Amino acid sequence: MKNLIVAQSGGPTAAINATLTGVIREWCKENKGAKVYGSRFGVEGILKENIIDLTGLSEDDLDKLMRTPASALGSCRYRLSDPKEDETDFKRVVEVFRKYDIGHFVYIGGNDSMDTVYRLSEYFNENKITDITVNGAPKTIDNDLNGIDHCPGFGSTAKYIATVCHELAREVKVYDRENILIVEIMGRNAGWLTAAAALAAEKDSEVPYLIYLSEVTLSVDKFVADLKEVMKKSKNVIVALSEGTVIEQGGKNHADEDGEVDAFGHKQLAGNGRILEKVLKDELKYKARYIELSLVQRCASHCLSETDIRESEELGRVAVRLGREGLSGKMARLIRVSDEPYKVEYSSVDIAEVANLEKKVPLQWINEAHNGVTEEMMKYLRPLVQGEMSCRYKDGVPDYLIL
Amino acid sequence: MKNLIVAQSGGPTAAINATLTGVIREWCKENKGAKVYGSRFGVEGILKENIIDLTGLSEDDLDKLMRTPASALGSCRYRLSDPKEDETDFKRVVEVFRKYDIGHFVYIGGNDSMDTVYRLSEYFNENKITDITVNGAPKTIDNDLNGIDHCPGFGSTAKYIATVCHELAREVKVYDRENILIVEIMGRNAGWLTAAAALAAEKDSEVPYLIYLSEVTLSVDKFVADLKEVMKKSKNVIVALSEGTVIEQGGKNHADEDGEVDAFGHKQLAGNGRILEKVLKDELKYKARYIELSLVQRCASHCLSETDIRESEELGRVAVRLGREGLSGKMARLIRVSDEPYKVEYSSVDIAEVANLEKKVPLQWINEAHNGVTEEMMKYLRPLVQGEMSCRYKDGVPDYLIL
Repeated sequence: MKNLIVAQSGGPTAAINATLTGVIREWCKENKGAKVYGSRFGVEGILKENIIDLTGLSEDDLDKLMRTPASALGSCRYRLSDPKEDETDFKRVVEVFRKYDIGHFVYIGGNDSMDTVYRLSEYFNENKITDITVNGAPKTIDNDLNGIDHCPGFGSTAKYIATVCHELAREVKVYDRENILIVEIMGRNAGWLTAAAALAAEKDSEVPYLIYLSEVTLSVDKFVADLKEVMKKSKNVIVALSEGTVIEQGGKNHADEDGEVDAFGHKQLAGNGRILEKVLKDELKYKARYIELSLVQRCASHCLSETDIRESEELGRVAVRLGREGLSGKMARLIRVSDEPYKVEYSSVDIAEVANLEKKVPLQWINEAHNGVTEEMMKYLRPLVQGEMSCRYKDGVPDYLIL
Repeated sequence: MKNLIVAQSGGPTAAINATLTGVIREWCKENKGAKVYGSRFGVEGILKENIIDLTGLSEDDLDKLMRTPASALGSCRYRLSDPKEDETDFKRVVEVFRKYDIGHFVYIGGNDSMDTVYRLSEYFNENKITDITVNGAPKTIDNDLNGIDHCPGFGSTAKYIATVCHELAREVKVYDRENILIVEIMGRNAGWLTAAAALAAEKDSEVPYLIYLSEVTLSVDKFVADLKEVMKKSKNVIVALSEGTVIEQGGKNHADEDGEVDAFGHKQLAGNGRILEKVLKDELKYKARYIELSLVQRCASHCLSETDIRESEELGRVAVRLGREGLSGKMARLIRVSDEPYKVEYSSVDIAEVANLEKKVPLQWINEAHNGVTEEMMKYLRPLVQGEMSCRYKDGVPDYLIL
């Protein structure tokens, strides 16, 4: 029996190692002596033959790995070339796969990583390499992958955001005076994560929330009007703002021209909350503060959604089963069967329907005033943050599995 | 039997409501029908007669309150005038205390709040008001209170910082390239909280940490030299920087001239990590990122130190017992009897030894290279983050007691 190799790619999440754990557990359940290898730093580890053997991990190690944040195998943002222009990388992948007697490759990642799965599986197809399957397992906190109800990693970050916003609302309420807190939230061009602030808002009836998703441009004038309206009932307001929300002022769009660009052409976002903070302080003379939830939100292993971790693990298992069934060029996915009781079913989707596409929040899930979300969005979000799980602690500090 | 009134003051912490819970529980244990009142928004609630009755809270409410972050009663930064210049506030306090038949006042707060306890108790003394005791219960994440081994609230924030730094080290290690993360940490002029990053550093041997406490000025040249040295063994580095660390460059000190000043004359800090980030990006062309742990670090109810919460609760109880014993003008405190096994004893200290004083990190607890801490500091820190406790969750979102 041939071996399996797994790699991780794209930005870190708190759940990506749960998917890795699922791959290892599922493979080792009936591997008949065949190994599960890990490629370090994504597909680059295959090209550079930076490969480790994961077959011998104990159940205790795996439990620890499942709760370890970021990509335990390391990650990359490397993009395979178009094979029609340059076959070098593809030939090298095949060479290394042959050397390690690989029969299955599972790539865990977001939409950019699914592009790698797509290109590899197409190349294998065209070159009649039929004894190696290539499948993807999804992950991204941004929840912007096509073809899946929601993405592994999203639920944990959504839970973290709801938790922290609820804490911050308590904080903002502490003094008996005007106090507005602008919380900038990740998600690139999709507002899913920012919408998760609404989970806190519905529990914290004392403090109004203004929620601005990246799907709708926000004018400063509208923001000020919204704020004045909610301040009629409360001196303290939480403003949840997507990092990708374009802010318009005086007919011009603020945009972060200095943002660094990665290998996939994505600009580093973050910073638009500062524009609103400045308006509040300088023009309205309100006490206002702007904070970024920053990198902590994507690797908060101390605040995991149990639902997310269980599903992430299962999707790793599904990706292994796809290969075993001889399928290739697929991404493991889950479909929601019902909201209440919450129920999902696992299946797969053709990778071509996923790669390089972005799923944004449907506009009908944003309220009419464009400063909150609808009940449909709440129904979608609520099940994803259910159940608490945490990293393991030793001597009061997280105890991670370092590969 | 006369009633007790309790109030909270100063910046929010994750443990200040545990102390409030201790006050209520201890009082209700043998109150013989006497009430425990809460003053809203610190001492201002007494002046404005914004007072609520806390006597009827159930044990379930109290358990929830113990895990609720920020000041459930609200807070203030109001400073009582010098009674020699203006007695108005003091007369008003006495008037309200008489109206509510108050025999004991417990003020939970940091060094500024202890100034209020001091002034009130002195005023009562000088005016022969002997039937009302005034005592303090400490709190501050900054750990800069005199006369106590460590401050309630510090342990939980220290645990949060160690947890998050450990997560961020996993994150920073993900890509196979240079990546330096500067983490700016609260603590005002004291480096205690930044030192807590060393708890993560000792568990994460793969990623070196450079830890700069506010007690020592940091020159940009030294920082660059330190960084180049540690980068000989790792491409990825965590830089833990106190918000209060003064950064010197070219013979001049960077200082945040724009910082807002509060009623006690303290300048709003934060932002010095940006200076180091700029040096790394512009001059050294390293991939570097600067993040502030921001307000989340002081109210992270989802990552509490059990040791801290238990001690915070007990200090509330001690403050009540001080009054019952007829003592006034004291602050409840704990003294550490031993590090291993960790053991503390509870007692009290004259408020004059506490008010308006700042306890900084002793220089001998900072390493010779001024970029880390000594084993003495580690022995001091380790017990304070032991044990995990969390807010209660309902439907996947924190469930707080809102007073």
